[in-house]
Amino acid sequence: MREVVIIGAGIHEFGRYSDRDYRYMGSIAVKRALDDAKIKLKDIEAAFCGNVFNTTCTGHNVLATIGMTGIPIVNVENACASGGSAFRQAYHSIASGQYDVVLAMGVEQSPRGFLPGAGWEDWQSTTGLGVNPLYFALNIRRHMEEYGITAEHLAKVSEKNHRNGVNNPYAMYHKEFSVEEILNSRMVCDPLTLLMLCAPDDGAAAVVLCSKEKAAQYTGKFVNVAASVLIVQKRADMFMPAVSAPVSADYPTLTERAAAKAYEMAGLGPEDLDLVELQDTDSGSEIIYTERLGLCPKGEGGRLLDEGATEIGGRIPVNVSGGLLSKGEPVGASSLAQVSEIVWQLRGEAGPRQVKNAKVGLSHTEGAGGNSNIIILKR
Amino acid sequence: MREVVIIGAGIHEFGRYSDRDYRYMGSIAVKRALDDAKIKLKDIEAAFCGNVFNTTCTGHNVLATIGMTGIPIVNVENACASGGSAFRQAYHSIASGQYDVVLAMGVEQSPRGFLPGAGWEDWQSTTGLGVNPLYFALNIRRHMEEYGITAEHLAKVSEKNHRNGVNNPYAMYHKEFSVEEILNSRMVCDPLTLLMLCAPDDGAAAVVLCSKEKAAQYTGKFVNVAASVLIVQKRADMFMPAVSAPVSADYPTLTERAAAKAYEMAGLGPEDLDLVELQDTDSGSEIIYTERLGLCPKGEGGRLLDEGATEIGGRIPVNVSGGLLSKGEPVGASSLAQVSEIVWQLRGEAGPRQVKNAKVGLSHTEGAGGNSNIIILKR
Repeated sequence: MREVVIIGAGIHEFGRYSDRDYRYMGSIAVKRALDDAKIKLKDIEAAFCGNVFNTTCTGHNVLATIGMTGIPIVNVENACASGGSAFRQAYHSIASGQYDVVLAMGVEQSPRGFLPGAGWEDWQSTTGLGVNPLYFALNIRRHMEEYGITAEHLAKVSEKNHRNGVNNPYAMYHKEFSVEEILNSRMVCDPLTLLMLCAPDDGAAAVVLCSKEKAAQYTGKFVNVAASVLIVQKRADMFMPAVSAPVSADYPTLTERAAAKAYEMAGLGPEDLDLVELQDTDSGSEIIYTERLGLCPKGEGGRLLDEGATEIGGRIPVNVSGGLLSKGEPVGASSLAQVSEIVWQLRGEAGPRQVKNAKVGLSHTEGAGGNSNIIILKR
Repeated sequence: MREVVIIGAGIHEFGRYSDRDYRYMGSIAVKRALDDAKIKLKDIEAAFCGNVFNTTCTGHNVLATIGMTGIPIVNVENACASGGSAFRQAYHSIASGQYDVVLAMGVEQSPRGFLPGAGWEDWQSTTGLGVNPLYFALNIRRHMEEYGITAEHLAKVSEKNHRNGVNNPYAMYHKEFSVEEILNSRMVCDPLTLLMLCAPDDGAAAVVLCSKEKAAQYTGKFVNVAASVLIVQKRADMFMPAVSAPVSADYPTLTERAAAKAYEMAGLGPEDLDLVELQDTDSGSEIIYTERLGLCPKGEGGRLLDEGATEIGGRIPVNVSGGLLSKGEPVGASSLAQVSEIVWQLRGEAGPRQVKNAKVGLSHTEGAGGNSNIIILKR
């Protein structure tokens, strides 16, 4: 397997748009990534596009607006992990020697209104358990009971991420909310209020991957891909443990298994990370995933937060981009926006949200289908 | 690149079903492919699933009905070439040394009623040019004007394929139609009548790919993958030439480019083929593609048909399975059903539709997005 690096990244601002479509947003993200890499579209040998809700041949339609060069384009759909799965296909196509320069892109124009959960058993859907906020709430409620997490903890996660997002030009909200405002916003699924949940929205992101041996001819500013892992649930390993069949207390969760594999692939541990972008679809998930990624022992996610460890200046900054809570979640694009953020952080170009001397960063997306996608980048 | 073989294939009967869903159909195709390969689901290391119209994480949902083993599953969408693109990802994941045993599956429960074309310019959609039968009709009408193809030729293609399909237990129609019946069926887009067009329908297909070095431990009945190619259109190379911008008369079409690349990869030429399964979405396309795949010189597709060369006993049998005209087209699955047919033909197990002593077969799918997918298998 050859070494793979990222030579460029670009995002179209996340938000809810009525004046542009996925083609336009995707083309902007791709053009920005190409400009960042200082290459032309004709230098790209293949493209993988993550998308869930839009049309047939989404990636083809995006590239058709800026120039079809005849390269193979493959559209990838893996729910919240779609962008990460597109990244992984691009990564392997270079690591294996098939190509040298490959585009991983993701785009989403989310449907408005109710979004059904995907991949659930019929009994889960018909009883309403397959609806996202509900199982998020069940998961964190159990965690609160077991480990003393409080509603204030949940509000503090959201307060932090919205505060970080103010400094991210690609975030949707761009607005700070106080712990009180978050606690007092409308209750959606107890204990999660409206401002503790991320919003499905629109956006696009793209990164250019390159074999390390060819990267120098384009740029000196590359970032190394240390790990790219996709783990899918086993039948006895549902990622909604509160409502699933009994799971052994000692059996690793989906994220724990993905993290173990990613750390092994990278030859790094959680103690080596300088920042983490993780799947904060809701405040509770951020607390749970900080534990499952090994940033702190099990049950200590609340204490990690209380100590300020996950702040930009803390021991292990989490979601310095503002996370999904501030950016929203255009599912096809979100993973590649995490990757873009880490690329800029490792290059020291993140401006007011820069983590000092960041050398290693981890991107984590997890979602329907039971996909957990982890990418580790290092300087 | 390592050598890759196919050790098993399975199809769920194509048709229009109201009593079963894509999960069930997919699970039947996968179980049949596993049984054919004499392996268990736990032996599979990764899966790629082609699907266009169904749900988020289609492949995950199919496998969840027969057992989630924790392997990475990636859903692939490339319009009519979705199944072929899933095959290609599986092929490369083994050829590169990443895995040894990989499942390529495709499934579709097609929406009923009007299916819009995908990947067209706005002006094409709004003028109705992006609707499938219309540009099929424009393409073959131009061909008729230039090369003397007649409506009888079109009817004869459909007559042949329906006659072949009677002997294929996986085909939808299972019924012969006379040239007169086909000519006299309802006119859809002149010159194409209803029985000259394929029907979108439901179905599933799966094949198990394996590294050649590991195949012997499972079966002696493997078939070699000689080529797996995905070509995407260039901007000046629309696959609907009759309505697109001027194209140089000497510039190769999408299928011509894909075929050239596939023949080069396989080290074989059209003269080495014993059978071809190609994208007969309509009778005209079969005539055009026989030329573009090099089975006869340009403009001689009608003569090839008149001579009986594309019959099961002919020089180069085309769509001995019945093709899309008899099977219908469940887009996520159709390419993998072509591959399954060729596998059985090369193993001499195709019963009354067997091509004698078949050693090399070619699968061709092409469609929206400007994808052309070619797979060449040899004994």
